[in-house]
Amino acid sequence: MPKRNSALSELGRRTEEPPIAWLMKLALDRPKLISLAAGFTDNPSLPVEATRELLEKILGSPARGQSALQYGTGAGDAHLRELTAKRIREQDGAKPGSGAHAVDRLMMTHGSQQFLYMVSEALFDPGDIVLVEDPTYFVYLGIGQSRGMRCRGVRMEADGIDIASLEARLEELKRAGDLPRLKALYLVSYHQNPTGTTTSLAKKKAALELLRCYERAAGHPIYLLEDAAYRELLFAGEDTPSALTLPGAQERVIYSGTYSKPFATGIRVGFGLAPEDLFPAVMRIKGNHDFGTSNLPQQILREALSSGVYETHVQALRVRYGTKARVMVGALKRHCAGAAEWAEPRGGLNVWARFSRRVATGLKSKLFAATLERDVLYVPGQLCYADDPTRRKPNCEMRLSFGAASEARIREGIKRLGEAAQSL
Amino acid sequence: MPKRNSALSELGRRTEEPPIAWLMKLALDRPKLISLAAGFTDNPSLPVEATRELLEKILGSPARGQSALQYGTGAGDAHLRELTAKRIREQDGAKPGSGAHAVDRLMMTHGSQQFLYMVSEALFDPGDIVLVEDPTYFVYLGIGQSRGMRCRGVRMEADGIDIASLEARLEELKRAGDLPRLKALYLVSYHQNPTGTTTSLAKKKAALELLRCYERAAGHPIYLLEDAAYRELLFAGEDTPSALTLPGAQERVIYSGTYSKPFATGIRVGFGLAPEDLFPAVMRIKGNHDFGTSNLPQQILREALSSGVYETHVQALRVRYGTKARVMVGALKRHCAGAAEWAEPRGGLNVWARFSRRVATGLKSKLFAATLERDVLYVPGQLCYADDPTRRKPNCEMRLSFGAASEARIREGIKRLGEAAQSL
Repeated sequence: MPKRNSALSELGRRTEEPPIAWLMKLALDRPKLISLAAGFTDNPSLPVEATRELLEKILGSPARGQSALQYGTGAGDAHLRELTAKRIREQDGAKPGSGAHAVDRLMMTHGSQQFLYMVSEALFDPGDIVLVEDPTYFVYLGIGQSRGMRCRGVRMEADGIDIASLEARLEELKRAGDLPRLKALYLVSYHQNPTGTTTSLAKKKAALELLRCYERAAGHPIYLLEDAAYRELLFAGEDTPSALTLPGAQERVIYSGTYSKPFATGIRVGFGLAPEDLFPAVMRIKGNHDFGTSNLPQQILREALSSGVYETHVQALRVRYGTKARVMVGALKRHCAGAAEWAEPRGGLNVWARFSRRVATGLKSKLFAATLERDVLYVPGQLCYADDPTRRKPNCEMRLSFGAASEARIREGIKRLGEAAQSL
Repeated sequence: MPKRNSALSELGRRTEEPPIAWLMKLALDRPKLISLAAGFTDNPSLPVEATRELLEKILGSPARGQSALQYGTGAGDAHLRELTAKRIREQDGAKPGSGAHAVDRLMMTHGSQQFLYMVSEALFDPGDIVLVEDPTYFVYLGIGQSRGMRCRGVRMEADGIDIASLEARLEELKRAGDLPRLKALYLVSYHQNPTGTTTSLAKKKAALELLRCYERAAGHPIYLLEDAAYRELLFAGEDTPSALTLPGAQERVIYSGTYSKPFATGIRVGFGLAPEDLFPAVMRIKGNHDFGTSNLPQQILREALSSGVYETHVQALRVRYGTKARVMVGALKRHCAGAAEWAEPRGGLNVWARFSRRVATGLKSKLFAATLERDVLYVPGQLCYADDPTRRKPNCEMRLSFGAASEARIREGIKRLGEAAQSL
């Protein structure tokens, strides 16, 4: 390792390597490894033939082709933005005139991750506070770490955050005089990464109302940042309306989504909506990042959406992930019953398994070592919890992904995990 | 306008709308406008058919197609990184073992703009100083403005920055005790945007050596950030070796480049190289931005480079831009001789025209208004100068782009510009 570079900025010095990077290197070093850790999507169902046909249409005409290969605009392709706003509106059962779903507050981004990053730049100074689910999406924790944000966890229930825990957090911040530093509550509201939990509309409503009550003491808006990355990957039950449908959403709800996971992760097109008093700041930041998302990938999505190819693909993908989820849960029942508990996912890419408190799952645990010895990798639950000085991180959970591995490898991987747990 | 949002971060509050955004809106509102301002590339020469064929190869095989539509890795496609490192090495006439050109210090990005942004995040705290060419690339000034950096101009000569001016700046910073805030010198070294100037190797060498002399007083490395965005667009004369070929480059030279402009701006694939003590910080930031550049666009470039399609396209593009540059210069000779001076570009997309000191060219000038009245738009030179309290911004220059407009419109646009100048 080179010695610490004294020219680095505070951000440059602060930004740590994400713990997950170490897991990824492990996977690369062991080609035989069954990774139930990777957040990759299912390879065989990637829309190779469909994308080829879409590109034939786009590049088949010189005029359309030239336009697709030229720079686009900062906010993204106008038609794709319209299609995206319409899709969210329809998912939400909202009227065409819904202000919260208006296209002029929607931008296309290089994956929804980029939108989350830019929103964080626009809102958070070092020391500012974001409330997150406990546990939450670990890459968002990485953004927080890098930017010097304080991430504080809110307890989870089966239908989303525990509103009493949220209120307790807010009271705690109020007492400590820290409310002026609180800028947002971040919720991964659909088939949450890592737990698979979907937040009910009632809880989103209660959360939004509660945040509003603390704004006077904060002295500024407190936003609800809804990350809907997994919304499209629903394979059981009904979709839930987003927080954009709630009273006051137009002023306080930031919403991010993506086409990467439901269509193709190799085509990174995400999007975000932000209130009128925040949107211009994020757009200006976008201008400095890259003055607009790659145009050709946007054209692929635009064509996929307008032709119906996207919808057909998503329907098939839901069936596929539903099957893989059942395979994983079936294997868990066979090999890990008694040792662990889990909720059956209704969407997304992950099963969250909770072991007894005596069984640690962390990177340095016996279970992690015994599992790795059997060439199987999972994401230790600990990595999904914020560095929060007010509580100890739980250390008996794990995220098991059924996205990338084949059905046979899911079965084999869970079997070996069961053997590893037995061996201790 | 909504009232100022008190929840914004310092960066969010600080970030201004770039002046160029106003020019872009003007252009959108006047469809008949001849824009000699847009930084867009030449539409008819975009490689529509070539891209279609490359995509047939990539998506024609299910295995290759699936891999192209899956997430890639943080630093980018390994093969594309190799091809990119090799290309720069060959352009530089460097040996395969050249440490400064090593692939493990190269990452692929969403355009070179993203790399410039992330490097700036890694190096600069608010108040930190970057030395820039006077004038320089205005989007980089936007990054500096947003991030609270102090941009200080170094005078230009026909072959790049004036080394005496650089030394004077460094001495000035030393006297003021500001050297510890100086992190880098930013040079757009090939066919510079906006002036078209190419920095000679001798000047890069002198600059790098000079920076080194001030490091002890600074207390940390001072980098040479070489932006080679226009390097491939050379249509007259010989290529110049990059600063990566200089002694000490491996430790102090940051280099950014792009495939957007030489191949297709709708496929945003750029790249950057950074020294070993800086690369990991930028990679971690990249992980938080988007955990890796879109894979499919990278595969297009990889296939274009390895098949020779890229080289063929670039050769044709050079001829094309050479022709357009001659058309613009010819029209200037016909219509603006006497009123303005310019250097004939040897590459890039721009001609920099200097009017007499009595003719202001700024957004509020009579010339700008008279030109716009004739439906022609240029970029006022003022917008390319840093906000530098130590000197007044020159206000008698303009950037004229021959990238996007057709030859007929370049002729007509310059004719009208001449008429506008005459009318005053």
